[in-house]
Amino acid sequence: MSNAIRALAMDAVEKANSGHPGMPMGMADVATVLFTKFMNFDAKHPEWADRDRFILSAGHGSMLQYALLYLLGYEKMTLDQIKNFRQLHAITAGHPEVMPSAGIEITTGPLGQGISTAPGFALAERILNARFGDDLINHWTYVIASDGDLMEGISHEACALAGHLKLSKLVVLYDDNGISIDGPTSLSYSDDVTKRFESYHWDVQTVDGHDMAAIEHAIAHAKTTDKPSIIRCKTKIGFGAPTKENKSSSHGSPLGTDEIAGARKNLNWPHAPFEIPDDVLAAWRDAGRRGASNYAAWNERLESSANKGAFLKTMAGDVAKDIAPLVNELKKQFASDAKADATRKTSGKVLEKLVPAVAELIGGSADLTGSVMTQIKGPTNITPGDYNGQYIHYGVREHGMAAMMNGMALHGGIIPYAGTFLSFADYCRPSIRLGALMKQRVIHVMTHDSIGLGEDGPTHQAVEHLAALRAIPNTYTFRPCDGVETAECWELAINKKTAPSIMALTRQNLKVLRTTHTDENLSARGAYILADAKDAKVTIFASGSEVEIAMDAKAKLDAAGTPTRVVSVPCLDLFMEQDKDYFMSFVCNDTIKVAVEAAIRMPWDRLIGPHGIFVGMSTFGESAPAEVLYKHFGITAEAVVEKVQAKLAR
Amino acid sequence: MSNAIRALAMDAVEKANSGHPGMPMGMADVATVLFTKFMNFDAKHPEWADRDRFILSAGHGSMLQYALLYLLGYEKMTLDQIKNFRQLHAITAGHPEVMPSAGIEITTGPLGQGISTAPGFALAERILNARFGDDLINHWTYVIASDGDLMEGISHEACALAGHLKLSKLVVLYDDNGISIDGPTSLSYSDDVTKRFESYHWDVQTVDGHDMAAIEHAIAHAKTTDKPSIIRCKTKIGFGAPTKENKSSSHGSPLGTDEIAGARKNLNWPHAPFEIPDDVLAAWRDAGRRGASNYAAWNERLESSANKGAFLKTMAGDVAKDIAPLVNELKKQFASDAKADATRKTSGKVLEKLVPAVAELIGGSADLTGSVMTQIKGPTNITPGDYNGQYIHYGVREHGMAAMMNGMALHGGIIPYAGTFLSFADYCRPSIRLGALMKQRVIHVMTHDSIGLGEDGPTHQAVEHLAALRAIPNTYTFRPCDGVETAECWELAINKKTAPSIMALTRQNLKVLRTTHTDENLSARGAYILADAKDAKVTIFASGSEVEIAMDAKAKLDAAGTPTRVVSVPCLDLFMEQDKDYFMSFVCNDTIKVAVEAAIRMPWDRLIGPHGIFVGMSTFGESAPAEVLYKHFGITAEAVVEKVQAKLAR
Repeated sequence: MSNAIRALAMDAVEKANSGHPGMPMGMADVATVLFTKFMNFDAKHPEWADRDRFILSAGHGSMLQYALLYLLGYEKMTLDQIKNFRQLHAITAGHPEVMPSAGIEITTGPLGQGISTAPGFALAERILNARFGDDLINHWTYVIASDGDLMEGISHEACALAGHLKLSKLVVLYDDNGISIDGPTSLSYSDDVTKRFESYHWDVQTVDGHDMAAIEHAIAHAKTTDKPSIIRCKTKIGFGAPTKENKSSSHGSPLGTDEIAGARKNLNWPHAPFEIPDDVLAAWRDAGRRGASNYAAWNERLESSANKGAFLKTMAGDVAKDIAPLVNELKKQFASDAKADATRKTSGKVLEKLVPAVAELIGGSADLTGSVMTQIKGPTNITPGDYNGQYIHYGVREHGMAAMMNGMALHGGIIPYAGTFLSFADYCRPSIRLGALMKQRVIHVMTHDSIGLGEDGPTHQAVEHLAALRAIPNTYTFRPCDGVETAECWELAINKKTAPSIMALTRQNLKVLRTTHTDENLSARGAYILADAKDAKVTIFASGSEVEIAMDAKAKLDAAGTPTRVVSVPCLDLFMEQDKDYFMSFVCNDTIKVAVEAAIRMPWDRLIGPHGIFVGMSTFGESAPAEVLYKHFGITAEAVVEKVQAKLAR
Repeated sequence: MSNAIRALAMDAVEKANSGHPGMPMGMADVATVLFTKFMNFDAKHPEWADRDRFILSAGHGSMLQYALLYLLGYEKMTLDQIKNFRQLHAITAGHPEVMPSAGIEITTGPLGQGISTAPGFALAERILNARFGDDLINHWTYVIASDGDLMEGISHEACALAGHLKLSKLVVLYDDNGISIDGPTSLSYSDDVTKRFESYHWDVQTVDGHDMAAIEHAIAHAKTTDKPSIIRCKTKIGFGAPTKENKSSSHGSPLGTDEIAGARKNLNWPHAPFEIPDDVLAAWRDAGRRGASNYAAWNERLESSANKGAFLKTMAGDVAKDIAPLVNELKKQFASDAKADATRKTSGKVLEKLVPAVAELIGGSADLTGSVMTQIKGPTNITPGDYNGQYIHYGVREHGMAAMMNGMALHGGIIPYAGTFLSFADYCRPSIRLGALMKQRVIHVMTHDSIGLGEDGPTHQAVEHLAALRAIPNTYTFRPCDGVETAECWELAINKKTAPSIMALTRQNLKVLRTTHTDENLSARGAYILADAKDAKVTIFASGSEVEIAMDAKAKLDAAGTPTRVVSVPCLDLFMEQDKDYFMSFVCNDTIKVAVEAAIRMPWDRLIGPHGIFVGMSTFGESAPAEVLYKHFGITAEAVVEKVQAKLAR
């Protein structure tokens, strides 16, 4: 059966003239044991909520997964798909792309991401198990990972936390083949992996990855420990290839016809390319239904469960109606209180209302809880062995945190949000990107969002981060200007079910600018006129903490006889996707265009063009109190007025 | 003596009403032992090339370093500087900012960076030692690191590689105080640090961080092993504070007057704020000169060394004259060969000429050597115990690689360059940013720079990365269109002594467009007219692989009676810093503006404004052959022509 995987991998890579045959050939035996003896799933019901999850962290070995899915009988994974490996519109992309209906739980490829997302899956399972019991949620998360996954730093963060949290239903099968792209791993890698994972309090075993009985025994043992498990599977990359076995030459290129012919001989696989003998296919198809009776039994339990409604609602993740009245209430309160406050604090107040009402919200922070205000009083912490809470102390592990949030979102049933400083968005960028690519709802709370954080200085002050985040496709960066917009932006982020969001929030206090309540979520179109002027000669665009400066500048300009419009832009990404008429009504008129943001100019050029006025940053920040820095960098109402008047005078 | 550090830390944080007193108070004893018994330096000659290097990885404890530097007698670190802690224009920033002349070797603060940059320092020391011998380079690298540093993934990457490379002259003093911002580290952190670092083949010891004899013994032992060393110093954060000792409340806020009074009493330190008794100051000032005789002896050795000239030239790092003729030769060759080639390959050819001629160039890759073409035939690898080579196999450790390159650049004597795929720039972004902030010459070779990489698919295809890198201040992103520009861009990157550069290079072949040789480096102004037209009606800006498309479009438009100018933009960052007249001569004219780049639009709006035509990407890529993808996403000469004609028709 495992040779069927090897043959399909060789043939598909050869036909595509591109791809990675070595890993599928090396790990075919391990995968065969896993899928025929352990994985609880039903290929006919791929989206069964309580299925075991499989994560191919070594995503370059995608043909391993595609071969498995075809052999197991997942309907979407046809032989034609395999033959169209790596071609446009095929679901057999170069690296696996998330599609639960086809049995693909996660997009992988960038090394380290799969193994670090997996603890998020495993944690989601435990959280939902704590809520819904073994009857509805009680499954395993299996991972195949490579040397590269283990070298990546993110694997340290997430695996250390997985060990700390005792995520015992997580099993990693490590393809310990000693070969990397540059050659033997000994060129650069001498970690004692056993000791390393013991230091994280994992269970560690080592087996011959081509001894199927040993593999079975090891996985069975892994399921008995109270720790996460890693099994070092000693394999031969390119197993069966006559000259490329155990060599990096089998890693990332087609083997070539001679080598494939030799491998067919070595593996005693005389069949034509893409041909699987009936008995082998039948055995695989049987394996594909091995969870069918479990699925049926689960369905019966669900039907008779008092929790059925709650469970289905949780897994559907649609909470728009739950939060709408709360958000409106918050908006009224912020507008009427009209109390200057930092948006990280108003965000905390929003969470105080929403978290108790929406159990799906699971919060956390990378050891900055008090600063980012993501924790509210009431709900308990999620701790090792007790997964009933709503808050995770992720430790100083921004990247692992972001990956684990992706995992929880992918698992379903959870809306993860967690916080760090905006400047540390860089640490989690690969996971934010992957969340966007996978269309996952993950909310990154990123506070201390500019030089306004003050004395901590340039290492901690975001300057280019807003631009860099707005640059990622399918990502929404919100930067509210006061409590009212904060509530609106949270609503938009939570309801944005197919994209990650960033909440960029201030450390410093901001005036309330939306003092008149509207039921309408004005932030929903990304930008709106906050304060208009008849026959406006100037339009000032601004976001977050700088909207206040724009309003001050408007007052001065109005008074000086230059009618000025202020456009608040809580979400440039949303604004850019509005219909052209709406967008151009702001941009295409004969007012002087100004943008004010304590960050770099780049994202604003779309609105103001090369001739517009920009008041913001062009260098890194400095260490000093916030108000000193705003003056030092000339981000003031006076600077806006001066530049507008200079332009008018020309 | 250590109480002097504690007092200054408490007082400075109190005066600034901002900062982190807990760590300096906790690590004062360890630091006192290190600086009075081990560090080889001379406060009067802070830039001595063979000084021991000290890296405060836990940069939030900056007052520890400032207090030390003042007490030791570094001239720039006056008592006034201490009193102006965290104020504008003071050198006592919130987190340490690199200034070797004041004894600050590196900017730290973002956790994990210091400890991961340190192996770069230690490796640079070994590389230069291998070249110049013990007489000229033979020193130690000491680090103070925190729990947060060790939780960060980057620490895994760099420390694993440091162990692999047997960087035995690296000693890490780990402030193992059990306290993080959110509370006790046990909230999220249960790594067995001893086992973890043993898994990396480090020497590990544990000591009472307030037992000065034990600390001395441990450091002395660390200097005898043939491995990097980490010493777990069990300390009490906020040591001496009556109610905040051992509590996270001492971490990141002023202690308050009562607490400080109590600490003064506990520490038996009756002196006024900022007052250091003469005898204590004298003892510290003596310690500040403990390396003075070593410095004098070293200077004598340098003066009498046959290598003096070579050594000084290496440390000065000015190689402009060495490379100029080689670059010109390469340009001639590329122009006359006129052979289509990928820019990753032409980059490889440039390195074939430059690396043998410039020993300062130390190359490497994160396990993508064959793909990124950073290694040339000839120079050997740097391997454990043998540091004579010019190439480092970094393993799949992009972030650690970037940090170590920062470290080598900071050490001096080395021009580091290394490669990965452009999409993985995200993995090393925090270190790239820090390199830019520290004004370090580090060259990041980032190939496979767009959908042009083809079948590997969207996880590996850069889309937003060019924008995100151009967004970082003081960073130069080069994207050459052919071999000639590749040679020019390498010259610019190598000569850019105060900033990191990115070389964004293609996987796919590109035509040679610069077939006429010029001695002048036309890329030096960032953009230039590659092909003009009389009475041009259209300007097409393009970079890298899309310049060819722009040229094709020009041919079609010219033929259709629409004279078109093509501006090649190998470096948008350089273009934006040209004088306004030059910049505006391209941007401010009545031609229709078009930009073509297989990436997002954002950076081009500065040139084309909201009404310009952009041909590029707005979503993630897909998995398919490159040429299929270019058509699929409409990045073709035909698309350019069509859009221009639609605009002309309006």
